[in-house]
Amino acid sequence: MATIQDIADKLGVSKGTVSKAINNAPDISETLRKTILDTAVEMGYSKLRRQRSHAKKFCIIIENMEYEEPHQFGYDFIIGFRQMAEPAGYIVDVIHIDEQTQKKTPYDVFMLQNDYIGAFVLGFSLTDPWMKDFKTSHTPTVLYDNYISANPFIASIGIDNNEGMTLAVSHLKKLGHKKIGYLSSALGSHIMQVRHKAFFQAMKQNDLHTEPTYAGSSYYITQCVEKHLSRLLQMGMTAIICSHDLIANAIMVQCQQLGYHIPRDISIIGFDDLPMCAYTSPPLTTIRQDRAELGKCGYYALDSILNNVSIGTILLHAQLIERNSTSKI
Amino acid sequence: MATIQDIADKLGVSKGTVSKAINNAPDISETLRKTILDTAVEMGYSKLRRQRSHAKKFCIIIENMEYEEPHQFGYDFIIGFRQMAEPAGYIVDVIHIDEQTQKKTPYDVFMLQNDYIGAFVLGFSLTDPWMKDFKTSHTPTVLYDNYISANPFIASIGIDNNEGMTLAVSHLKKLGHKKIGYLSSALGSHIMQVRHKAFFQAMKQNDLHTEPTYAGSSYYITQCVEKHLSRLLQMGMTAIICSHDLIANAIMVQCQQLGYHIPRDISIIGFDDLPMCAYTSPPLTTIRQDRAELGKCGYYALDSILNNVSIGTILLHAQLIERNSTSKI
Repeated sequence: MATIQDIADKLGVSKGTVSKAINNAPDISETLRKTILDTAVEMGYSKLRRQRSHAKKFCIIIENMEYEEPHQFGYDFIIGFRQMAEPAGYIVDVIHIDEQTQKKTPYDVFMLQNDYIGAFVLGFSLTDPWMKDFKTSHTPTVLYDNYISANPFIASIGIDNNEGMTLAVSHLKKLGHKKIGYLSSALGSHIMQVRHKAFFQAMKQNDLHTEPTYAGSSYYITQCVEKHLSRLLQMGMTAIICSHDLIANAIMVQCQQLGYHIPRDISIIGFDDLPMCAYTSPPLTTIRQDRAELGKCGYYALDSILNNVSIGTILLHAQLIERNSTSKI
Repeated sequence: MATIQDIADKLGVSKGTVSKAINNAPDISETLRKTILDTAVEMGYSKLRRQRSHAKKFCIIIENMEYEEPHQFGYDFIIGFRQMAEPAGYIVDVIHIDEQTQKKTPYDVFMLQNDYIGAFVLGFSLTDPWMKDFKTSHTPTVLYDNYISANPFIASIGIDNNEGMTLAVSHLKKLGHKKIGYLSSALGSHIMQVRHKAFFQAMKQNDLHTEPTYAGSSYYITQCVEKHLSRLLQMGMTAIICSHDLIANAIMVQCQQLGYHIPRDISIIGFDDLPMCAYTSPPLTTIRQDRAELGKCGYYALDSILNNVSIGTILLHAQLIERNSTSKI
């Protein structure tokens, strides 16, 4: 548990300054106050949320996603969300909810029973039972990478995947690639369907030929490699875009084992920009989604719904991070 | 020019209370403070923005859109944007920029010359010269109903038109309609293209048959009526969705002149929910876009870009407003 001294030490400011920031004293700049509060949240300074005895509670509901360590996909979402919510006086609980719990208790009942006034939902697949509940729920809820139409209590946030895929395909086209394949996880989640469709759309926009056989998807990464990679290589692909970084890394390893040099013989692009991308061999060119910013947007959308501004969708810009897994043909 | 007394009179509170709200005194509730500031902005209490001598300046740039009177389409956008920006200390100028000015001065130059740190852009068509400038601009800019890909300084806001069109088609389907036509303005603006595509998509989602001939578009409303209405009626359409309320109203008037009763013989749906919709004959069923909320979102997106949160798109939920221009077949 961090103390005021810990925060002061980390930032190289005095304890008094940290104290001023936390107590909203007027004689401190807004920028410094923001930095101190962000750091306090990140270091787990818990007094921030205990300040108000009747604080309202949000929950971050997580399924199918690791989030406890800084290198895991869900971690930064939680930090970003809490950096906004806790200084605004909310308590934020992070809870893992499995299918069993979802089947046993309807979503709105669960939220009421636990005094949550809103939720930020991460990692749900289309078959998670509460996905049906969201269609008619009256609880302010923000879904990351899922979409529910026409319920004013539900908003969606994510990055602009069409933009991301267009950046990836245009980058490869500029490097001279024409035969580009696509490998993804199974299409059982909303976001995998969106990216799959976005790939074909981006190829079309770039006047590059595609056929359904240019793409392959499997539930497990090893399956995906086994089932589709040699086929794509035999078809003469000079580049492969992957639905996320973990597949991209597995593909790079397998290509190298088959004697291909990356990027000389084949270019590979990932998606997400996980922390590991800078350390793969070679470092992976990928599409970044800034997960801390997405966490902040999640809070903004939730706060808006609570204030009767009916946010439906927020998409952040995607960004191409060019490393060494792509090169001229 | 409104005074503190005017604001106090309008809200039925004391002058002291208004003064407290404007000067950020702590002994006033956040809700009341917000209401007073909103009202002050709406009534044009100008001292709010003169408080800070070095206030930063935004501009709202308008083309092809009326905005000076409360019943005009652009009016509420401006109010919503100013209700957020002025209490936050910004000066907001509203300026009409024609094609001539755009041709003469590049966008970023214009913004620099006039000390604007960001803009909210309304009503631009795809042929407005600055639409090209936005692709590479480095000025934080939010476009209403226009989209620029992959420039982190540019965000787009609007309502979810796919959702809106789905609400319109589903509503008609529930009433028993199967042959549904679509009439729109010329497809020379981004939003007209989006709605046109959304119509066909919504028909498909609802398992209703369509062909390209089910839709018609023309630059002028009178042209649209003359050229397409009798065709759609001869094809046996029992309902027509229009790309905006003004066309819908013209279609209703013409149908009635041809001896059709609305909604008994034919159902009509508009788009936008202009103030006039409650007073047309019959009152028009339409899809609402809340323009004051969109103005507020415009400010949020601009503020986010200035704070390096790279908002790409914000879409508000669409809402079906059921009046008397639609009924069972």
